[in-house]
Amino acid sequence: MQTSSKSRYSAAANQAVRFLAEVRPLIDAELDHLLPSEPTEPAKVHAAIRWSVFAGGKRLRPALLLATGRTLGARDRDLLPTACALEMIHTYSLIHDDLPSMDNDDLRRGRPTCHVRFDEATAILAGDALLPLVFQTLAEDRNLRPETAVRVIAEIARASGTPDGMVAGQGYDLAAESGAVTGAELERIHQQKTGALMGVAVRCGAILAGATDPQLSALSHYGSQLGLLFQITDDLLDITATAEELGKTPGKDARSSKATYPAVYGVEATREYLMSAYQGACIALEAISQPTQLLHSIADFIVERQA
Amino acid sequence: MQTSSKSRYSAAANQAVRFLAEVRPLIDAELDHLLPSEPTEPAKVHAAIRWSVFAGGKRLRPALLLATGRTLGARDRDLLPTACALEMIHTYSLIHDDLPSMDNDDLRRGRPTCHVRFDEATAILAGDALLPLVFQTLAEDRNLRPETAVRVIAEIARASGTPDGMVAGQGYDLAAESGAVTGAELERIHQQKTGALMGVAVRCGAILAGATDPQLSALSHYGSQLGLLFQITDDLLDITATAEELGKTPGKDARSSKATYPAVYGVEATREYLMSAYQGACIALEAISQPTQLLHSIADFIVERQA
Repeated sequence: MQTSSKSRYSAAANQAVRFLAEVRPLIDAELDHLLPSEPTEPAKVHAAIRWSVFAGGKRLRPALLLATGRTLGARDRDLLPTACALEMIHTYSLIHDDLPSMDNDDLRRGRPTCHVRFDEATAILAGDALLPLVFQTLAEDRNLRPETAVRVIAEIARASGTPDGMVAGQGYDLAAESGAVTGAELERIHQQKTGALMGVAVRCGAILAGATDPQLSALSHYGSQLGLLFQITDDLLDITATAEELGKTPGKDARSSKATYPAVYGVEATREYLMSAYQGACIALEAISQPTQLLHSIADFIVERQA
Repeated sequence: MQTSSKSRYSAAANQAVRFLAEVRPLIDAELDHLLPSEPTEPAKVHAAIRWSVFAGGKRLRPALLLATGRTLGARDRDLLPTACALEMIHTYSLIHDDLPSMDNDDLRRGRPTCHVRFDEATAILAGDALLPLVFQTLAEDRNLRPETAVRVIAEIARASGTPDGMVAGQGYDLAAESGAVTGAELERIHQQKTGALMGVAVRCGAILAGATDPQLSALSHYGSQLGLLFQITDDLLDITATAEELGKTPGKDARSSKATYPAVYGVEATREYLMSAYQGACIALEAISQPTQLLHSIADFIVERQA
């Protein structure tokens, strides 16, 4: 594993790069199918939803669900709607996070954020419409047995809300802006804000593939380490990357004194922590008897990513 | 049926008044059980949720679900979690509706709105936390068979989002503020903004009680007429009631030139329309063989309500 110049990845990470390129059109086509069309009334809300969903994201969460499900032998058609439901949650959270009263971001992935392109009320409604669509998608997925649908709905709902999910992480993050945070508090913020959704992507992929309890347990650990990896690299990129690479304003987190790993531990200790999370993810995969190169490669990809 | 002075109801409406008083403590106790406690971290978000959920609402949507379910012979324990899930959706919608970029309301039920009592970011997160809790509650309700849970989840998700649910109604409502609306547009706004959730309360009560298709169809019509009744009386109250009776600023809708029935049709024609919706609700109930006095009485109560 080596980090090199922009858009150059190690051989280990390259499998994930190719996988992301392969599944992205599948995910985008399914999202296009699941979302109301742009002319569907109320058209402004649906235009805002599509503006943000099709803003050029990496589709990491749905890809992670597909990678886990495929690793355990599931078919794409049993995985794709749930995978896309996770991308809807991720997108809604970005729309609401970017609002003036939250992170107040004007730019995301190099484009105006939803409330800048449309208006604040429409951005709030776009997020508010995506959330029920998530659960409608899962409840109406005819490929899922009701027992499985209910289990996946409960998992995703827990990972999205409070006290154990993404919104709790947002709540801690807002509270942290008003003062210095400890390492433990930072861990909690990130584990919930980013880790919960990445963790549930892996867990749902496993559940949809009929994972055994030991498989589910090992993969859950892999997923939580991956979430940690992602947030640490995000924090590092924020202080090292250029605006062009990031597609957003770099250094913003540091300026607004938000809780970041480099701010709490310093850059060197943060890099060491990154490698320990990477090792944790790899070790967790040893409990899986199926070939896990793809899941390994995704960990490499996240460590090496430049944006 | 006669409308009289404040808090005085006709004999027909009194059964509903007593029923609402009877079920309110049951609903409140179940909500208290389902919501994270106030000290649970992130405490500010949970305090904001409880501030708004326990703000003194009439619990009309959950009561409607209970009334319909009881009418068809279901037990309260099979109805209460879903009933409370609807109250959570209703509350989240009020929190987001009141935000400065939406209706910008400082007062609701005589108390400061969520973003005034806390702050805007916390109010957004409180709503964002309530929505997944709705679906978690339904997916984890051990009294529901998975087939029923999935059906109810799909119903509630559709009624909450776009293009057929509450958020679509909000979207139309925002669009309508910028110009005059026709009667048909007004109908669409209200049918989705208010009617969708009241309709789904009746439908879910019926589904949880194992309603036949003809029963479900008749009750769906009753529910949609009830939603209409509710919105018409809301619009009439806005121009006739005092602030003390309403617990909010009266005349606000008229001042901001929002779409209301009296604004489009005038007060007299609106009162006639009210009576026609009332008749529609009563006629729909004739298809139900079980005693439907309670459901009749709820229609009377809504027509006669003073706040």
